[in-house]
Order: sequence, then C-alpha cells, then structure tokens
Amino acid sequence: MPARASEPSRASRSADFGQWYLDVVRDAELASYAPVRGCIVVRPYGFALWEHVRDALDRRIKETGHENIYLPLLVPESLLETEAEHVEGFSPQVAWVTHGGAAALTERLAIRPTSEAMVGAVYRDLIQSYRDLPVLVNQWANVVRWELRTRPFLRTAEFLWQEGHTFHASAAEAREEAERMLDVYREIWEEWLAIPTIRGRKSEAEKFPGAEVTLTGEALMGDRRALQMGTSHDLGSNFARAFDIRFLDRDNERRHPFGTSWGFSWRTIGAVIMVHGDQQGLVLPPRIAPIHVVIVPIWRTTDEQVAVESATARVEALLRDQAVFGDQRIRVRIDRRDEVSPGYKFNHWELRGVPIRLEVGPREIAAGAVVVSERVLETDSTHAKASVPIDRLAADVAARLERLQARLLERAAVFQHANTHRVSGWDELVEVGAEQGGFLVTGWCGSAACERDVHAATGMTLRVLPFDGQLEEIERPAVCVRCGAPASETAVFARAY
Amino acid sequence: MPARASEPSRASRSADFGQWYLDVVRDAELASYAPVRGCIVVRPYGFALWEHVRDALDRRIKETGHENIYLPLLVPESLLETEAEHVEGFSPQVAWVTHGGAAALTERLAIRPTSEAMVGAVYRDLIQSYRDLPVLVNQWANVVRWELRTRPFLRTAEFLWQEGHTFHASAAEAREEAERMLDVYREIWEEWLAIPTIRGRKSEAEKFPGAEVTLTGEALMGDRRALQMGTSHDLGSNFARAFDIRFLDRDNERRHPFGTSWGFSWRTIGAVIMVHGDQQGLVLPPRIAPIHVVIVPIWRTTDEQVAVESATARVEALLRDQAVFGDQRIRVRIDRRDEVSPGYKFNHWELRGVPIRLEVGPREIAAGAVVVSERVLETDSTHAKASVPIDRLAADVAARLERLQARLLERAAVFQHANTHRVSGWDELVEVGAEQGGFLVTGWCGSAACERDVHAATGMTLRVLPFDGQLEEIERPAVCVRCGAPASETAVFARAY
Repeated sequence: MPARASEPSRASRSADFGQWYLDVVRDAELASYAPVRGCIVVRPYGFALWEHVRDALDRRIKETGHENIYLPLLVPESLLETEAEHVEGFSPQVAWVTHGGAAALTERLAIRPTSEAMVGAVYRDLIQSYRDLPVLVNQWANVVRWELRTRPFLRTAEFLWQEGHTFHASAAEAREEAERMLDVYREIWEEWLAIPTIRGRKSEAEKFPGAEVTLTGEALMGDRRALQMGTSHDLGSNFARAFDIRFLDRDNERRHPFGTSWGFSWRTIGAVIMVHGDQQGLVLPPRIAPIHVVIVPIWRTTDEQVAVESATARVEALLRDQAVFGDQRIRVRIDRRDEVSPGYKFNHWELRGVPIRLEVGPREIAAGAVVVSERVLETDSTHAKASVPIDRLAADVAARLERLQARLLERAAVFQHANTHRVSGWDELVEVGAEQGGFLVTGWCGSAACERDVHAATGMTLRVLPFDGQLEEIERPAVCVRCGAPASETAVFARAY
Repeated sequence: MPARASEPSRASRSADFGQWYLDVVRDAELASYAPVRGCIVVRPYGFALWEHVRDALDRRIKETGHENIYLPLLVPESLLETEAEHVEGFSPQVAWVTHGGAAALTERLAIRPTSEAMVGAVYRDLIQSYRDLPVLVNQWANVVRWELRTRPFLRTAEFLWQEGHTFHASAAEAREEAERMLDVYREIWEEWLAIPTIRGRKSEAEKFPGAEVTLTGEALMGDRRALQMGTSHDLGSNFARAFDIRFLDRDNERRHPFGTSWGFSWRTIGAVIMVHGDQQGLVLPPRIAPIHVVIVPIWRTTDEQVAVESATARVEALLRDQAVFGDQRIRVRIDRRDEVSPGYKFNHWELRGVPIRLEVGPREIAAGAVVVSERVLETDSTHAKASVPIDRLAADVAARLERLQARLLERAAVFQHANTHRVSGWDELVEVGAEQGGFLVTGWCGSAACERDVHAATGMTLRVLPFDGQLEEIERPAVCVRCGAPASETAVFARAY
C-alpha cells in the first residue's frame, strides 16, 4: 500500500474559526463553490447529512397534522407587493426574472424569497368556510435571497428549506401553532442535531417582515457567536387582510383567518459543523450521520486479504441485520480502497465525523473480535480502542451511538452555559461582549433606540427575548442596560452569523 | 346528516378527454392553477401521490449506486452556451434573471431548464483521475421551461423532477448506464404506476440536445395519444469535450470521460390519471395511492355513533398494525365528517381513486365483520361488496391491494396491445392514424425528410425506435412507409402530448 497521502492544510479552529469552517466544508467534501455567485454545490456527503435532517423533520411535520404541497418558484411583482411590510423587508434581496425565451415579460417575476405572498393569493380561493380551517401545509423548496456576503450553508443566495404555512379560525389557535412548531424544531435541534438553543420572541426590529410575532431558537457556535436556527411566525391576520382572505364563520359572519409560517433551512448543517466540529474535522451526531460505522480491513498478504474480506462482509451483514439505533438501521460503509493505507483511511473518516470505526484484521479474526474506536472528542481526556467479541458487537455499537448522541448534546449545553453571561451595566456589556462573546443576558426597556445603541457600540444584536423557564439560574435584570429605565424584558444579545 | 352535496360537473371522458383530465385534476384536488403563468399549485393529495412515486424511484436510484447532490438553480448564460447543440435546443425556453435586488446583473442567469451545463462546469474540477470515476449522482429539483401551452403535470413552466448525471471511463460503460437507468424507470412505471411502455431510441430529430443517443419509454394514454414517460441520454463525450473535462487514465493518458443523464418528472402523475382514470375520477395503483383504505362509519343514533366510533378505531389500528402490502404499511383514513352523508363520502373517495372502502356500522359490529368494497373498474363487469370477518380483514385487504395493482397493469397492457397497429403503406398510415390513433408501427428508412413528412401529413411524431424483444408479434416492416426504400428501422409513430 502507498504511504499516507498528504492532506490539504486546514486553518486552526481556535485561531481562525471562519477559515477553519470553510476548510472543513471543503475537506469533508460537504459542499463546494458553484460557478454562479453566492451559490454552492452540495456534494453527496453534505446532501446525505441534509437528507437525514430533512426526513426527521418531515416526519414530525406530518405527525403534527401537516400535509406537503408545492407552490410556484416565481411570484409576480404585484403579488409580492400586496403586503407592505413584507415587500419592504424582502425587495432588496429579490432576484428578478424579466425575460421568458426571447420575449420581455409584461410583469417582472420574483424568484421566491419565501412564499407568504403566493400562499395568500392561492388560499384566498381555497378558504371559504370555517370547515376549510385549519389549513396546515408545508413545502420543501429552494428560495433565493440576493445576499452580498455569502458562506456555505449559513448564507447562500439560493438555499433549501421547508416553509410551513397555516391558517386558523382564531388568533389564539394561530399563536399555539407557532409555538408548537417552534417546539418541533427544538426537538429536532436537540434530539437529532444535539444542539441546545435559547428560545423566545424576536424584538420588533428583528422580526419577520409582516409578522405579529416571530419566535426563534438561537444556538451558540464554537466561536461564541450566535446562529438563528429557525423561526416560527405568528402572522396574525396581516396577510389574510392584505390578500382579502375571509371565511364564513359558524355564526355566519365573514372573518379573516389568522396565519402562521415557519422555516428551517440547511443553515442548520452549518450549525452542526460549528457546534460539534474540532481541529480534526467534523463530529456528527449519530442520528444524522450519513455513515454510522466505517469498517477498515487490515491485511498484508493475499491470504490474509481473502480471510479479512470475508470476515468484513460478515461483520457488515451482522450490523445491518441486527443492530438497531433508535428507529434507524445501522449505516455501514466498508472502505475497501487498496491505494491508500489504513492510517490514511482512519484520518479520512475521522475528518468526516463518522462516529464509529471498526478494524478487522487477521488478529481480530483469530480472536473472534473486532477493534472498535469512537470518533475522538477533544474534550474527552481518555480514549481507548476496545476489542469487542463479535457476538456482542451489534449491542456494543448501538450503545456507543446512543451514548455519543447524548454526549454531544450534553457537551454543547455545557459550552452554552459556560458562555452565557449575566451583565448589568453598560461598561460590563461592552467589555464582556468584546472580550468573551457568547450570550449576554441583560435588562432592556423595550425601546428600539436602546437596541440600536447596543448594536452600534458592540456589534451585537438582540437575538431573543427568552421564554420563561430558560436561564432560570440567572437573576431577572431590573433595569435597561442602556438607558437605566425599568426593564420590561430580559434580552439576550450576541454577535451573530 | 345533510343530503348528498352537489358535485361540480365533469366533462365526458369519451367525448372530451382533454377537459375530463382538467376536471379530474380539479375535482380530486390534485392541483390548481397558480397566479403565475403556466405554473400549478400541487395540493396535498397530488403531492402525496408524487411523494410515493419519488420515494420509490429515489430508493432504486440509491440502490443502483447513485448519491444525491444539489446544484444551483441559476446558470450563467456563458455556461449554458458552452455546448452548442444544447443551448440551441433550450434557449427558446429559458427564463432569464437580469436583476438582483435593485442592481442589473453583469451577466444574465438562466433558471436551469436542466443541469448538464452546470454539471459540466462543476465536474471539470472534481474529475482528475480514473479513480474519480464513475461519478454517479442525482438531484431532485425544480426546473423552468418557458412553455407557451401548458397543462397541469404534463407541461408546466416549472416542474419537479429528478435528473441523474454520470461520468464513466469508457463509452461502453456510459451506454450501459443509460440503459440500466431506463430499466430502473421501466420498473417504476410498471411495478408502481402500473403503466406499460414501449422502450427504445429516439430519432435524431427527437433526441436530447447534446446527446449521442436518447433512450425513452413511451406509454399510451386513455385517448390513444402517446406520452413520453422519461428519457435516459448517452451523452458520449460531448459535454466532457465542451467543458474540457479530462481524467488521467491508468495508462497515464488524459482522456475525456463519457457521460449520461436521465430524467423522470411529475408528468408521470399525469400519465397515472390518463391511463387508469375513468368517468368517476381517479383510479390509483395501490403502491402509490396516498390512502389505501378509507373507513366510512355508518350510524344514526348517538348510541350507535359511540359504538361505531370505537369499532372504527379498532379496525384502523388492526389494519395499521397487521396488514402489510409489499414493503408498505397500510395507509388508512377514517372519514369522520358529520356534515355529509355516507353516500357523499363514497363518491368523494371514489373520485380520489382510493382502492378500498370499508363500511363499519351497527350491523357489521353485531356480525363481527366489515363491508369491503373495491374501487369499481368500469371494464370489470361484476363488482360486489363483501362482508369480511374482522379476523380475516388484514389479509383480505392486502390481497385485494395486490390484486388491484396487478389488474391495473394488465388492463393497461391489454389496452396498449389493442391500440398498437402494424401499418404498411402510406394510405394505411394516414387512415389508421386519423381514425384509430394509438401506436402505429411501420418501416422507416432513417431519413429526417420522411420523418417530417409523416408529421406534416398526420400530426404524428416518431415516438420510439423500439428495442428488440418488444412488439414481437409484429412482423418486421421491410420498407419505409414514406419513400418505399428498404427500412433500416422499425418505427413507432403516434400523436403525442
């Protein structure tokens, strides 16, 4: 076998987190830049990761009573303009289609930046009676937002997401739906992506254009900057009024329904990289890992090769047939390449964050066992290879996957906790913001001016006004960190992606 | 309960097939027109149908070694122009983006009509060595083709499809791949959609712009017009040359790889409607039906209602837990609406093509049985409701689904066979084409002029040059139907969608 091949150099995660992120995306072959501005090509390993996230969320969206639909990509300009705040918020980011074939169009068409306007126009006809409510629909789609500064997965001119859209007979039911779907997101973030969040409302300045209330989940990345993981909007009757959607209620009155919308995009893949990854590359929560177990055959002579290949195939079959990880089958890959050494392969799969590696060689075959290694976590002080008898392998692998899944969430929660700071005064806010970063929890009077001042002085934005029951160990701030007036809100500030 | 509600009127399938199709799409709530030219809104029932088709095909695409990726929606004009035949074929149908936000772009961007050009540009960098081959990738995506005459599912300005793209070290391997994927399509058409096809090559005039050879599967709709169900292209080294993709071969020579691409779109949903549907509405092959079994509770008094609701829930649980149809769980829906009568519900679900209906009422509860009805097929002379004991219900339902799936394919094959005509001379071609329609099998000399003459005189196009082993009962034609020269090919002509 040839010697271990050279690796492209990777930036230091601690010294240059931004470049480290780009290097990991490249080295792990998750995505590459496309020959069109601001867009990426999602490569097989990256797309498989997204498929597992998408399928988990899709299942929960359906279990909570929603049905998938598909709406057009193109939105006539007049439609997009129907809701005033909405168009004002999105029009600077819209890509416009002006020609079809050789002919100029009579009206420009926006490539959807989101679909509330299309939903409004379509459901104007479909909602007539209270019997048509609630409408509970979702679509998986691409959207385009003409961003100037892009970053793979986190901010791209085109991205994939799901957007849920619902209509309800009452304001209370719409609010409940917006909260329910944020909680479905929380479940996916925690149980699948192993990422804890602080959840709550956005400020008026940060909310979705056209919404009454925007709910959000904010997570802390490895460089102590925040990332908005997804949002769920209570739209009130704003879009229903703008699009003149009305239903005949039980009492024979015609009323506007109340709407919600909620979106979850592939930027969550960026969060997985930035929360769990380390200098060696990706660390993947097992539930979304494209490959759970990689098997590396080890042999020198041709005789050994024959025996090892047959043992490897038996181990693969055993894991596929017998090992179950939650409701998933174990996803196994045998790395049969003969042009690279075992050491090269170890490195290759470690970089790709595969949770478990098995080594099968003549010694293992003789012992009726397999050498099992887990993806090393830099925060764990000890890590040993274990020799596991074949008859205990399926159970052993499943238990290790369960443990790693739990361990990653726990580790991320400890990190978030350690980087959440209660700050009382202005100087403390500025100093802690500049020197430590993380989530800064403080009092806020509710005025947009004070919010702007914080941003201007520190670069931090108001990420979330947290729901009760979170940050319970933190004393409720009494006054606004900026103006000193009584605090009407507890606010979480952070520098954000 | 209120009386049976009135239905929108539906055109006659035999007298006005085109309008009947539109009416069924509307009445079964598969799709509706969108407020943007040529586009549709796919509603929950239509999208669920597409999801089952998509998931079945996606599984086979992965089982045959392909991985999913995602490529950008927007293709710079210069990229689209790289392969000359390709751009000539597609540019009349391209929607152009000219502005991002307020700014005019320096180069126009095409909304992808297909992604060969993007694939060429991306894989120029990713393919270096023979070790990088074969490349076997696929994406599920939306594409836009600016069509003047549109029709839901069959021809829409935007549509959903999958497009596979592969590169190989040899021409033979690429041809084999194109054939393999056409055969995967055949499997989905036959085993899932229950639609037989004639498969073979396209003529030069009909092939994909930029391909060496286009393979196709052609099916016959209920009005005896043909529909192209999907195509698989052997691209030779055309795109590799145009995009200067080269790999270092084992012998240290730099060579162009050979490519394929293959696409399967939601137009196949249109085929399901047109092949199996009848005057009552949809008839769905069970393997893709969003709902396998609908349960209609029958009751008059409140006491009855309580007993029936509880029995209905037990039947649903029994089917969900015990009945298995191939590798699928049984998909059950209980129609609990109390504002419409059982008769209305029967009609509602028959229109939507649900394969099996169960009635559960006080009499059934007393007898420990359930009344089972299948979706009536107009071609079947007898159809009776059966009373099936609860303990045999799961097996009975599964057997009926299996039988219906097979029955639909058989019925469609009989129809195709009955409407496939061998024609020898010009007058016969014109007469049979005008009076009977269907597939017309005849001799062809291979010249584009004769092909054009047939089209000009009859409106028929050359659908397919069939592979051997099909149409075996038909004698091989000796001369060209147009010019009388010796026939180099057996050709199948038809009027087509």
